[in-house]
Amino acid sequence: MKALEDKILTEGKILQGSVLKVSSFLNHQLDSDFIMELGAEFARLFSDADVSKILTIESSGIAIALATGAAMHVPVLFAKKHHTSNILGESYQTVVHSYTHDCDYTVVVEREYLSQEDRVLLIDDFLANGKALEGLLELVHQAGAVTVGAGVAIEKGFQNGGEHLRKQGIRVESLAIIEKMDSTGISFRKQP
Amino acid sequence: MKALEDKILTEGKILQGSVLKVSSFLNHQLDSDFIMELGAEFARLFSDADVSKILTIESSGIAIALATGAAMHVPVLFAKKHHTSNILGESYQTVVHSYTHDCDYTVVVEREYLSQEDRVLLIDDFLANGKALEGLLELVHQAGAVTVGAGVAIEKGFQNGGEHLRKQGIRVESLAIIEKMDSTGISFRKQP
Repeated sequence: MKALEDKILTEGKILQGSVLKVSSFLNHQLDSDFIMELGAEFARLFSDADVSKILTIESSGIAIALATGAAMHVPVLFAKKHHTSNILGESYQTVVHSYTHDCDYTVVVEREYLSQEDRVLLIDDFLANGKALEGLLELVHQAGAVTVGAGVAIEKGFQNGGEHLRKQGIRVESLAIIEKMDSTGISFRKQP
Repeated sequence: MKALEDKILTEGKILQGSVLKVSSFLNHQLDSDFIMELGAEFARLFSDADVSKILTIESSGIAIALATGAAMHVPVLFAKKHHTSNILGESYQTVVHSYTHDCDYTVVVEREYLSQEDRVLLIDDFLANGKALEGLLELVHQAGAVTVGAGVAIEKGFQNGGEHLRKQGIRVESLAIIEKMDSTGISFRKQP
């Protein structure tokens, strides 16, 4: 998506450890109109997938997931990190490792919101090592639901998460794939 | 807002400790179309306030804040709980007490996204003791910006947060105010 690549080039900052900071528009401050456009693009890409529910993970996936849900007119479910005190009854949960924060955390969704009738689209802001999406896949698996694919705003193509998911047969649609990123700049993978 | 009161009556569950569980549509699963309607209603209520930025707090404020931002065409900023490793430079921060989780946490926004030129609308899903909104007010104060008001989906009118904020002169618009909530049911405060 050309508009996202342009936005990354003009507003993104490269930090140490292959961290791309896009908090001016994507995951701290949110460019509302632009996020709605990203959601509309995911809705277009997955318009043939008969999606019944969108699944994401708190916090930075929520905005794009809502934008996608609004464009597709389907509910969004966001997995919570850790347990909170007002989760009733049974839940689906799995452990995810975060390389960014160098820790493990548990992601949880309540059973009643994910069922074997669901056709689930996973949405997240970033795909690098793919651990967060793998956690979400596991939650869908526990529910006996179908994952129709994963929509990601920014994929770090130089890390192996995307390749690993595609090799498993998961349809991954990334709106921008960064091929290379260093002090000289950012280059994107050409996409059809 | 009648549609929200109806939704609370049909989908809300009352848990121990005056907890109202609305995670089927507001803060775990999100009814996308409905959340967009809530955002449009906040945009209508604050259409005269010349808002330049919306401020909320992760995670459950993000969806409604984005919906409001999209309706008003202004950016959203969500305060993060704790520090994360990719916050550059200086930040505004303050400590907030959570009665729900019985703990203190630090809420943080990066300085560059909030300035003294901003006219800020606070948005959150719930208002009970008001501690989260007071934390956001403090961040706006640190930035030298103006708070034009606070938009809340559900206010617990039987707790003192809303009254306390209004006494400080803050314009608080709650889409539903629960006057009473017990095993016999839920009653709402009449609003103009």
